[in-house]
Amino acid sequence: MRLNRESKIEIIAVGSELLTPFFNETNSLYLTQRLNDLGLEVSFKTLVGDERENLLKAIRVALSRSYLIIATGGLGPTEDDKTRETLAEALQRKLIFKEDLLKTIERRFKRRRLEMPAVNKKQAYIIEGSEFFKNKNGTAPGLWLDTGNNVIVLLPGPPHELKPMCEESIWPRLEKFSRFYVSRKVLKIAGLTESKVETLISDLYPKAISVSINTLAYPGQVEIHLTAHALKSMKEAEGMIKKIEEQMLARLGNNIFSTSGEELEEVVGKLLRFKNKTLAVAESCTGGLLSNRITNVPGSADYFLQGVVVYSNKAKIDSLDISPAILQKHGAVSLQVAEAMAEAAKKRANASYGLSITGIAGPTGGSAQKPVGLVYVALATEKGTKVIKNIFPGNRKNVKFQSSQKALDMLRRYLQKMPTVINKTKE
Amino acid sequence: MRLNRESKIEIIAVGSELLTPFFNETNSLYLTQRLNDLGLEVSFKTLVGDERENLLKAIRVALSRSYLIIATGGLGPTEDDKTRETLAEALQRKLIFKEDLLKTIERRFKRRRLEMPAVNKKQAYIIEGSEFFKNKNGTAPGLWLDTGNNVIVLLPGPPHELKPMCEESIWPRLEKFSRFYVSRKVLKIAGLTESKVETLISDLYPKAISVSINTLAYPGQVEIHLTAHALKSMKEAEGMIKKIEEQMLARLGNNIFSTSGEELEEVVGKLLRFKNKTLAVAESCTGGLLSNRITNVPGSADYFLQGVVVYSNKAKIDSLDISPAILQKHGAVSLQVAEAMAEAAKKRANASYGLSITGIAGPTGGSAQKPVGLVYVALATEKGTKVIKNIFPGNRKNVKFQSSQKALDMLRRYLQKMPTVINKTKE
Repeated sequence: MRLNRESKIEIIAVGSELLTPFFNETNSLYLTQRLNDLGLEVSFKTLVGDERENLLKAIRVALSRSYLIIATGGLGPTEDDKTRETLAEALQRKLIFKEDLLKTIERRFKRRRLEMPAVNKKQAYIIEGSEFFKNKNGTAPGLWLDTGNNVIVLLPGPPHELKPMCEESIWPRLEKFSRFYVSRKVLKIAGLTESKVETLISDLYPKAISVSINTLAYPGQVEIHLTAHALKSMKEAEGMIKKIEEQMLARLGNNIFSTSGEELEEVVGKLLRFKNKTLAVAESCTGGLLSNRITNVPGSADYFLQGVVVYSNKAKIDSLDISPAILQKHGAVSLQVAEAMAEAAKKRANASYGLSITGIAGPTGGSAQKPVGLVYVALATEKGTKVIKNIFPGNRKNVKFQSSQKALDMLRRYLQKMPTVINKTKE
Repeated sequence: MRLNRESKIEIIAVGSELLTPFFNETNSLYLTQRLNDLGLEVSFKTLVGDERENLLKAIRVALSRSYLIIATGGLGPTEDDKTRETLAEALQRKLIFKEDLLKTIERRFKRRRLEMPAVNKKQAYIIEGSEFFKNKNGTAPGLWLDTGNNVIVLLPGPPHELKPMCEESIWPRLEKFSRFYVSRKVLKIAGLTESKVETLISDLYPKAISVSINTLAYPGQVEIHLTAHALKSMKEAEGMIKKIEEQMLARLGNNIFSTSGEELEEVVGKLLRFKNKTLAVAESCTGGLLSNRITNVPGSADYFLQGVVVYSNKAKIDSLDISPAILQKHGAVSLQVAEAMAEAAKKRANASYGLSITGIAGPTGGSAQKPVGLVYVALATEKGTKVIKNIFPGNRKNVKFQSSQKALDMLRRYLQKMPTVINKTKE
């Protein structure tokens, strides 16, 4: 096998549904991730329907330009499923009936007390010269064929069939031919814009030899994806990551909230649990999103006591005892109301901390003084209450998300007992 | 121009980020939708990186097998952006400098009081024989080139640049060559599983001549996408849709909650607004998701009064006056507590309706009597309180979503004053 970094790799996703506006092809993202883990990069992705003619064209193109070809889908029992037959045609190879494969498929039906439909018999044929992989979660077997010119892998389309087959049979086979040890790390950042992050770290790019750096920006969150390729050992790859990670930590400090894949709500949850503290929240414009994110974390009942969604002024008065005079004087979207909401949330639930959000998510409700995107976020602690004024860009859902992110990040920074190093928002 | 139903159409998405595990290519879904609207179907999608050699191969393959080629991305000003140059190379055509295009790009920078970087000059070159489209939202112009053998369209990659350019310049050009009138409709269903929906409508499939039917299943929601192709007129296409839609409505009745693209929370919001009613909610296991979905709808402040997230027993007692005796006797996840929560939510906010959810979202907290996925959903109205017991499959987030969906759907059915025709859940 001559697979190396210069070999071209192509993924072919087969299925007419992939050429409709409704389906987002995602198997290839998983395949790419795991290939990358082996130091192997994808050069082409082709999506093609079930028609024999187009599929044949796509396979012929792949055979001519790529060494390793991974095709997904089209291995089912119906007339529409033609990947196996069409590959055989492109390679001018016969299909061979496998008695033991048929028995495996029949057993699968028997276990479910069903008779195998006649159409499934075609799944017991493999291409001359290929090896097959049994499918634990379906009837379509996988195929591995090394022709000398190409290595071709056929995989079933459903992710819950494809992934276990890859983990068990495909990656171990490709692993021994990989010339690289790959280590990855994701640094997640809150409280800084993408351009600010870029300004702080851009001079590190040229120093990151053999480490690729991808920066991804979401509303309220920036991620730096580090991938190191080492020739000698995994330790070497990890060392390369560690070096650049330390340089980035020195620049970005506690703006990085996670280096192990955790979401901000998970980090906050762990800190609360670790410090044996509890939380209550009061939300206006986020309408329950903050509570929802906190409670997406399994076990959050241990530290999250309660939340209120006080959308109307009446609800703010009735549920949180916000003074009608303050609402009248400053308006519902104000520093004073945010402060009172956080303190009331904390007090009512007898919680260690109270978080509150009040703002204008839009698209309507804004004014010259209080534009859409204006959001006050407050944190009440044993040491008093802090309020941050923000102007968030984007649509209603984006404003809601950034507001909840800001609230979680205020609490994280407080719990980490570190000063807010860089903060673009005004107090 | 010979574009017709037999012409092959290919989308090429250019960009090395599209071959990483991090990016999901979505421009092609939009392009496919709009091409389908014109009765044109996509035969191939190719994703390729920025390297000249691979890009050249991908373009040559497309030129040989497809008539209409729409390429997105790689039109920027940097070294990495090579789509324009590589297409010119594949066609052996020159790049021509366009003075007026340069002026347009320069003006764009001037308006922002910036000087145009020298690299942007290359965006003022077009391929010999092509027409260009100015970009209102960026610097990269689009290109249209008819070589006689192929029609090739180059579009900028950012969706907010690509979409307006397509709407303004590309679809009107392709429209006149379309041989079909296309009408679409999406029927959204809550309260039935995908297999139940299939059982109820599968005999309609053969009757739906020239209407394609795609069924998509999500947790708590099934969608039927109908697409009709007519030769004579849009009225004919709409008539074809109407016919099959009426047959489906007869089978599925008020299990269909939307035929115009609306989400369930929007449908419920409109019904509340129309009937001049208000809503308050009390959530346990959904942790704010229900409130969050309701308040994702702009203007929801008009009918949504307040929500409480009562995660702990103490919160249920303090915030909703749930009797400690009931909690003690039946447990927090019980019909009785769900009922009391819905009634308390309604009463406290003085709302027309109260919705409540209490259950076990998992992964922990389940038992033999009360397994993970057990969720009680209650609706309190002027006529009394109804509770539905559910066992939802899936992980924590899936259980949360299905619970919120059930709550919204109970209220929708009540507001529509229609009986619950088919209901797989037990009372």
